[in-house]
Amino acid sequence: MLSVSPYLKHFDPTSAQIEGAVWIERRLSQLRGCFADPKAYDTALEHDDPLVYSVSSFEPATNNGDLHIGLGKIMPGRVGSEYFLTRGHLHAWREASEIYIGLSGEGLMLLETEGGEARSIPLTANSIVYVPGHTAHRTVNVGSSPLTYLGVYPAQAGHDYAAIANNNFRQVVIELGGQAVVMNRQAWLESHPAR
Amino acid sequence: MLSVSPYLKHFDPTSAQIEGAVWIERRLSQLRGCFADPKAYDTALEHDDPLVYSVSSFEPATNNGDLHIGLGKIMPGRVGSEYFLTRGHLHAWREASEIYIGLSGEGLMLLETEGGEARSIPLTANSIVYVPGHTAHRTVNVGSSPLTYLGVYPAQAGHDYAAIANNNFRQVVIELGGQAVVMNRQAWLESHPAR
Repeated sequence: MLSVSPYLKHFDPTSAQIEGAVWIERRLSQLRGCFADPKAYDTALEHDDPLVYSVSSFEPATNNGDLHIGLGKIMPGRVGSEYFLTRGHLHAWREASEIYIGLSGEGLMLLETEGGEARSIPLTANSIVYVPGHTAHRTVNVGSSPLTYLGVYPAQAGHDYAAIANNNFRQVVIELGGQAVVMNRQAWLESHPAR
Repeated sequence: MLSVSPYLKHFDPTSAQIEGAVWIERRLSQLRGCFADPKAYDTALEHDDPLVYSVSSFEPATNNGDLHIGLGKIMPGRVGSEYFLTRGHLHAWREASEIYIGLSGEGLMLLETEGGEARSIPLTANSIVYVPGHTAHRTVNVGSSPLTYLGVYPAQAGHDYAAIANNNFRQVVIELGGQAVVMNRQAWLESHPAR
């Protein structure tokens, strides 16, 4: 039998690592501009620079028709009232969709079209979230344990972080009285009592 | 908040159903020509017409860049010595790859290029199997419990069953002394004592 290694990868759902795969980590200090409240961000960083999320990516080939898969893990936590989140991105190839599969934890996905239509979709174990093309997406951990999930996308999708960095998402996910609440960013900034 | 239904599906890993998704079932009588031993197939059918496998498919959109996801479940069982299997297919769009994610059970995937190069790859919980383009693929349950898995593929992949129906796969997966053994089909047919 020929080698199976280009075809088979095992993953550990707890550590969220795919064996031999590309591994990236994002600590709080690398996420400047992602959270709504810059004061809360600076205060949090004075105390610690925690791991916010990691992604392990298996990228077996890059031709048209090929697929890549990532295993994400977002730690539980908040910056002020705002839950830990991924940077979020559009695909550089705008038509590229993505399918997320929830493994563990309690999450929300923020989906936002280029036209600014915004939605939030629950992401939990045994759920599938379809992210259409032309749609920015961010994942948020609203639970008290790590949120883990798989994401499958066309190999040629690419990542465009710049569009998000300029405008950020229109929605924020805030802890309010022990509940995760999705609010319009601007409305929340204007009402936020600590500012 | 707008409706989330086009974006979110829950699945039941035990029944292997994705809510509101396309559902197909394949009983033994629908798999004529897939198993190596036609006598064993006819004998098995005289007794019963069991469910061999089911696939639940979520097909949210069909544009270039879109993805579909299927949830497969193969029951444990054999036809003679040969383990229960899926019909197997090439993608009609040959460049289309597929990513399988094992959920439960013990399986093998038979991969075979159009040039006839054959491989078998284990498929178990927490494993990812990459099926390149131009590669026929069949899934086999070699365990004693249902084998369940997710498969993600480009929306435009399509299914071509005809190429397989003409030649079948070069490899068969046979129970031999309580073990699953992968053999060349022709070699097995020639050595098979019951024929």
